[in-house]
Amino acid sequence: MDDQAVTACVLIIGNEILSGRTQDVNLNHIALTLGEWGIQVREARVVPDVESAIVDAVNYARTTYDYVFTTGGIGPTHDDITADCIARAFDVPIVINDTIAELIRQRPAPPDVMEARMRMARVPEGAVLVDNATGGPPGFRVDNVFVMAGIPGVMQAMLASLDGKLRRGAVVRSRSVTAFLGESQIAGALREIQDRYPQVDLGSYPFFRKDRYGTSLVMRGTDETLLDEMLEAVKAAIIEAGETPQDVHHG
Amino acid sequence: MDDQAVTACVLIIGNEILSGRTQDVNLNHIALTLGEWGIQVREARVVPDVESAIVDAVNYARTTYDYVFTTGGIGPTHDDITADCIARAFDVPIVINDTIAELIRQRPAPPDVMEARMRMARVPEGAVLVDNATGGPPGFRVDNVFVMAGIPGVMQAMLASLDGKLRRGAVVRSRSVTAFLGESQIAGALREIQDRYPQVDLGSYPFFRKDRYGTSLVMRGTDETLLDEMLEAVKAAIIEAGETPQDVHHG
Repeated sequence: MDDQAVTACVLIIGNEILSGRTQDVNLNHIALTLGEWGIQVREARVVPDVESAIVDAVNYARTTYDYVFTTGGIGPTHDDITADCIARAFDVPIVINDTIAELIRQRPAPPDVMEARMRMARVPEGAVLVDNATGGPPGFRVDNVFVMAGIPGVMQAMLASLDGKLRRGAVVRSRSVTAFLGESQIAGALREIQDRYPQVDLGSYPFFRKDRYGTSLVMRGTDETLLDEMLEAVKAAIIEAGETPQDVHHG
Repeated sequence: MDDQAVTACVLIIGNEILSGRTQDVNLNHIALTLGEWGIQVREARVVPDVESAIVDAVNYARTTYDYVFTTGGIGPTHDDITADCIARAFDVPIVINDTIAELIRQRPAPPDVMEARMRMARVPEGAVLVDNATGGPPGFRVDNVFVMAGIPGVMQAMLASLDGKLRRGAVVRSRSVTAFLGESQIAGALREIQDRYPQVDLGSYPFFRKDRYGTSLVMRGTDETLLDEMLEAVKAAIIEAGETPQDVHHG
């Protein structure tokens, strides 16, 4: 769509997502937030808590996209292996980060609990910390890989702390309109409109509401003039098919 | 965890998931359903509506896992390219499926609408149909790849039609228990328990509820005797740490 785009891949790390125990909501939040910042999520992977799987996914993603965002696996228990995997992916040792260690020592605890907590101070050598406004241990960044918590509230705080610190591309804007038409009733017109505006991505999403089939048409691109032109063309196609364009939305 | 396991990969196809416009709920449903059938989802990928990306993901997944389940991109519009991508991945031509074509012809429509609908009769040569009890066009299967709709209700109907038709491995069962303890307070005990029962996967998931930090401990494995033993060990560790095991659940 745009060769100057800044791209990202999201890696959701955790067996609990793959088993179905937990419904992931982090990808959606990250995609919306990065979108506002002019960074396009081009791929996402859900990876199990298995070292080789995480290392391979990180190495693929960091060499393919501008940025990588991981969620999950940075707590104090035995199944939290993300930091070790990132270190292995970059082939650097794990070190104790003094800032995190100091933060952890500020809350008193018995020796065995403190030892477990100190696991969260272990980061790959060269890592830069990512703030955690919820008060817990921070996430970290190595090169173009950002490592965040899996708990949605904590992840969101970490991501928010990156606002203004990342490279931005043109923001992808959208136009959308719905009609109580089956997709097939406007498929021909949509194809012709898409061909006419190759720089804008035209998506067609059927829905069923109020006992009727309908279709949402969503246009996404960086050029607002083209978006507006395409929206008018789609609205005209809906009218041509005998229906009324509804719920026009500019995003 | 189990070399005799039957494994699966889920491919969520669609720009609308990566842009954040739509929250995916299909992975969770597929993971839970396959889990009940003794099939373990080991990986999931969210792939954009880009031919090369879909073809590569399908070819990776179908040669790595026993089964692949895709959602999205099988409607009648220009952005529905999944059937073509599956054909390309298997290097077979696209053909018109007579059964689907007949189904489509049963609902009268103007010629241009009928032509658009007929796009949904295009499947890779050799494809076997997957029933769609919601009344729309079916999905299809090529070898070990199942191609389903993206609309959750339709996808769920298609998946349900496969009940009893897939190879099953041992069903992964679970035990879970929660405690109002920080993860660090039992991290040492959990690691020791995990080492003692390597065949069972012990996950630790922190939560914040009623103004208190707590931890859910989830054990997953195919051997119920080991699961019960491990659950007792985890409960003992919680008591040892001064708290009461709560919400014990057998799944």
